[in-house]
Amino acid sequence: MITQCEKSEELDQLVERARTYTSKGKVADYIPALGQADPNALSIAVHYTDGRCLAAGDTEKTFTLQSISKVLTLALAIMDNGEDYVFERVGMEPTGDPFNSIAKLETMVPSKPLNPMINAGALAVTNMLSGNTIEEKLGRLLAFVHDMTGKTHITYSSKVAESEFKTANLNRSLCYFMKEHHIIKGDVEELIDLYTKQCAIEVNCNDLARIGLVIANEGKDPETGREIIPKQISRIVKTFMVTCGMYNASGEFAIKVGIPAKSGVSGGIIAAYPNKLGIGICGPALDDKGNSIAGIKLLEMMSARYGLSIF
Amino acid sequence: MITQCEKSEELDQLVERARTYTSKGKVADYIPALGQADPNALSIAVHYTDGRCLAAGDTEKTFTLQSISKVLTLALAIMDNGEDYVFERVGMEPTGDPFNSIAKLETMVPSKPLNPMINAGALAVTNMLSGNTIEEKLGRLLAFVHDMTGKTHITYSSKVAESEFKTANLNRSLCYFMKEHHIIKGDVEELIDLYTKQCAIEVNCNDLARIGLVIANEGKDPETGREIIPKQISRIVKTFMVTCGMYNASGEFAIKVGIPAKSGVSGGIIAAYPNKLGIGICGPALDDKGNSIAGIKLLEMMSARYGLSIF
Amino acid sequence: MITQCEKSEELDQLVERARTYTSKGKVADYIPALGQADPNALSIAVHYTDGRCLAAGDTEKTFTLQSISKVLTLALAIMDNGEDYVFERVGMEPTGDPFNSIAKLETMVPSKPLNPMINAGALAVTNMLSGNTIEEKLGRLLAFVHDMTGKTHITYSSKVAESEFKTANLNRSLCYFMKEHHIIKGDVEELIDLYTKQCAIEVNCNDLARIGLVIANEGKDPETGREIIPKQISRIVKTFMVTCGMYNASGEFAIKVGIPAKSGVSGGIIAAYPNKLGIGICGPALDDKGNSIAGIKLLEMMSARYGLSIF
Amino acid sequence: MITQCEKSEELDQLVERARTYTSKGKVADYIPALGQADPNALSIAVHYTDGRCLAAGDTEKTFTLQSISKVLTLALAIMDNGEDYVFERVGMEPTGDPFNSIAKLETMVPSKPLNPMINAGALAVTNMLSGNTIEEKLGRLLAFVHDMTGKTHITYSSKVAESEFKTANLNRSLCYFMKEHHIIKGDVEELIDLYTKQCAIEVNCNDLARIGLVIANEGKDPETGREIIPKQISRIVKTFMVTCGMYNASGEFAIKVGIPAKSGVSGGIIAAYPNKLGIGICGPALDDKGNSIAGIKLLEMMSARYGLSIF
Repeated sequence: MITQCEKSEELDQLVERARTYTSKGKVADYIPALGQADPNALSIAVHYTDGRCLAAGDTEKTFTLQSISKVLTLALAIMDNGEDYVFERVGMEPTGDPFNSIAKLETMVPSKPLNPMINAGALAVTNMLSGNTIEEKLGRLLAFVHDMTGKTHITYSSKVAESEFKTANLNRSLCYFMKEHHIIKGDVEELIDLYTKQCAIEVNCNDLARIGLVIANEGKDPETGREIIPKQISRIVKTFMVTCGMYNASGEFAIKVGIPAKSGVSGGIIAAYPNKLGIGICGPALDDKGNSIAGIKLLEMMSARYGLSIF
Repeated sequence: MITQCEKSEELDQLVERARTYTSKGKVADYIPALGQADPNALSIAVHYTDGRCLAAGDTEKTFTLQSISKVLTLALAIMDNGEDYVFERVGMEPTGDPFNSIAKLETMVPSKPLNPMINAGALAVTNMLSGNTIEEKLGRLLAFVHDMTGKTHITYSSKVAESEFKTANLNRSLCYFMKEHHIIKGDVEELIDLYTKQCAIEVNCNDLARIGLVIANEGKDPETGREIIPKQISRIVKTFMVTCGMYNASGEFAIKVGIPAKSGVSGGIIAAYPNKLGIGICGPALDDKGNSIAGIKLLEMMSARYGLSIF
Repeated sequence: MITQCEKSEELDQLVERARTYTSKGKVADYIPALGQADPNALSIAVHYTDGRCLAAGDTEKTFTLQSISKVLTLALAIMDNGEDYVFERVGMEPTGDPFNSIAKLETMVPSKPLNPMINAGALAVTNMLSGNTIEEKLGRLLAFVHDMTGKTHITYSSKVAESEFKTANLNRSLCYFMKEHHIIKGDVEELIDLYTKQCAIEVNCNDLARIGLVIANEGKDPETGREIIPKQISRIVKTFMVTCGMYNASGEFAIKVGIPAKSGVSGGIIAAYPNKLGIGICGPALDDKGNSIAGIKLLEMMSARYGLSIF
Repeated sequence: MITQCEKSEELDQLVERARTYTSKGKVADYIPALGQADPNALSIAVHYTDGRCLAAGDTEKTFTLQSISKVLTLALAIMDNGEDYVFERVGMEPTGDPFNSIAKLETMVPSKPLNPMINAGALAVTNMLSGNTIEEKLGRLLAFVHDMTGKTHITYSSKVAESEFKTANLNRSLCYFMKEHHIIKGDVEELIDLYTKQCAIEVNCNDLARIGLVIANEGKDPETGREIIPKQISRIVKTFMVTCGMYNASGEFAIKVGIPAKSGVSGGIIAAYPNKLGIGICGPALDDKGNSIAGIKLLEMMSARYGLSIF
């Protein structure tokens, strides 16, 4: 387990340059807990397969996973149910529509969420997690996070989860639509409960970088080589991170950065360069697509400087 | 109060000719109670402002109002809240989309149901009814029906309401979407409860014809002349019946029949020829738009024979 | 033929009150000829079946028919081809989409313009007019206008037609889409040529009122009783005027005014109250839906004052 | 220049296994020239950066580029105009809509094709090519192809170009829509002429593999190291091949194969594995998305066998 990352003057400089973009962004404020984040904050941790680690900014500050959790539940749902089961219910195609859009669920015949990174698809994926109860399903997801980070105390913020539960009417709308079309089953309120809790899991940049590293490392623990995610599933996850990871700015991000990545509305970004490194970023000020404005700029600079595009 | 309608050989003949179309239709079967209706049934009552009344078929057989109830709640909601309040929240425009569509709620900015005859609009209208509780609101709606029909025992089928409540996931989806956009307020499950009960109100063809007659008669009781619906509101209701009353076959119906009318998935149709007559029809076999297939044919024949188009 | 209309103080007052709304509207300016219209102008002629006639404002000032021509080509196309042929190619349903929208042509399967009052449908209707050449087709349309107005010198403005021909790219886009789907046939540029000429036919308020009167009078010449449009076709036309005549403000207009009417982007409005009167209005300042802002207000006041709603 | 590729028994076996899928596909037949292709044909050439080359099937048989040409015009348009100019007019986002869809052009404000791989975007890109005449622009594109393949006799099939020109109504519709919105400029018929000619450029599998190799090799001639496409532009091109290269099956292809690739309706597929190899495939039988059904299967098998996914 990495306990202490090196400081890098070069990385510090990139962070300071990227931080200047925070003033053009806006912290999400649809729930109080997100609105209290420092808009000027920007931190990053980079973990390499060889054990090295770089950090800049306050990498111990925690934030909630939000949409980044979609990557984890996707991996777990495929491990639980197999590729065929999952992709019969959720598509593989990127979409030009916003992440919370419902229109395509209506126009697609048969109705099917286009991919697991938009809300509809992610809700359907969470609905597939094995477990008899919400607690059991959440426990399995947390255990998965503990396994990847090596930190067994990681849990969710009940305050954030409760706030999001109250405001989750658009997600309820998506769920009832999918329930009508037999894409999801069971109780919608329970699903929303589980989904808001998964989104409220609290991590810091080092945790995120470490999870990214496992995904980058073909699903294996970088220290012990133990398989946490089957190689093929880690590949699927990275592919979705490229085609649909940054909301409907995914195409532009692939062009300008070219690293598999997934963002969340808390300002977090996870990135995974195959066989090389994992990155965790937190910068709460968001651009108009919902991505960390300075976080994206930082990755853009790093990709240009270090040639990190996979293309 | 009309107790006994005349028989008319001519009307009987039209009904028999129209009945031959029932074989091309299909009874709604998404809940058992609707699926048990006789697909070959077809009955009609015509009530005139001068007190005359014609009938053919089993006009005492009851059926549920379903979407026909949208006409009644619209009138009551305007009486309760005024035109401005209602039409700030629900539009006046017909739509080419299906009655249960959600896509336009997303693409319209700001989000607003296009009209009160599609499900989204009707749910928003029901949400506006005055009353402190569901029971009180439903009681007011039933009293309104009693007032128009002169029959105080009319109530809803709890069996139908319960079945519909269970399967109302698409309506829940619409409601949560509208709640997110502040079009509706309060508890969604309570609104669905009220809405499914309003749809389950049981009437027969004579009741429907009588309600149609009140609407036709500028909102006044045809016997006493007492105002039940203000004239201006009765006019609004008739207008919506023309532009949006027959789902997305309203335009064709206006061309081919030309009488303000509203249909329900139970096979009921209410029609109101201004200042002249009200019609109640029941023919459970539906066409692919959800309208009584023989009922529409019957109105088409009557319009051609008696020149009933308002155009 | 009416040569001189009476002046009515009451009508003058209504016009002056309505004229105050012109400041909130905007003259169409996508071609120079329309942009030069006087934004404060407002004139009206009302022709009755009994031969009476009222007028206010400059009713001899000419303007181009624009979308009002859709009503005339629809009548002529049905007279030329029969209802079945026309409505196999163009639908009867109102739409919540803008008049120049293409999206529904793509989402409807099979592709079909929703109604003859939106541009796609009107282009398809013009494509059906009988005649071997553009000149012949246009000649027949002009003869039809001469027949209805009794004025044989009415023709189109070649200056307006040429300007519109140059800027008609959206209509070309609609045409090629429909050509791909076999809704229209023949040369697109020729169709656009004919269509822009039909839109550029110049009339004044009296002409428009007279055409409206023929439509109102079941298609018969109000003086001689001669049939110009078959009764059933005049009825169809009036129905479309109600359900789709005022762009996507048709529903609101039906509620607030309730007279069959059709507007054009030149600020013209034709209206036809069945069996009673025809109205011609010109007020070039448009609201955001493309309807004469003062013209609509004037009709609203007249409908309220004189009880002109058909509902 | 490669003149003779090695035969590989393993590759032959994969081709034979993939060929069995041709029976489930269908050759494009909207123009006669495409319809005459052998539905059972399947051939492949693989060119490596180190000069090696493998082949199976009839790799000398020519076919037209069709949509594969979109990759070449994109590279050339960026070389001609710079990234900023191009991406102000064409977006970078994948879309869940079909390649020839027009609806998003209408719903996006401002109107903009979502990416350069759908028809709207590709037409806009072709519209940006430098040159005073169609001949000059086409000449530059052919010279670009000659440069990449080393074969200066490659040209277009005038027979195919003419057929496609006649049936290109959907593309005309897209063009006029974009002209209205100032996304393209100039004469639409000339643009369609150029576009259909670029689509009709005839190559064989070796040519395609060689072009793929240049793209894979950071834009440099693999033999001389000379830059044909700037490195950054070759990277952009590969990114679009991943996110949007296989019509609206691009996401699934990225998951199952994971190699940057672009398909055409002639059954051709070009693929480029960064810094390693280029692939040219021809298999005219298409799946329902318009991709070579056996070609995709072959790439899927090769990716699984040789670990060719970039993820």
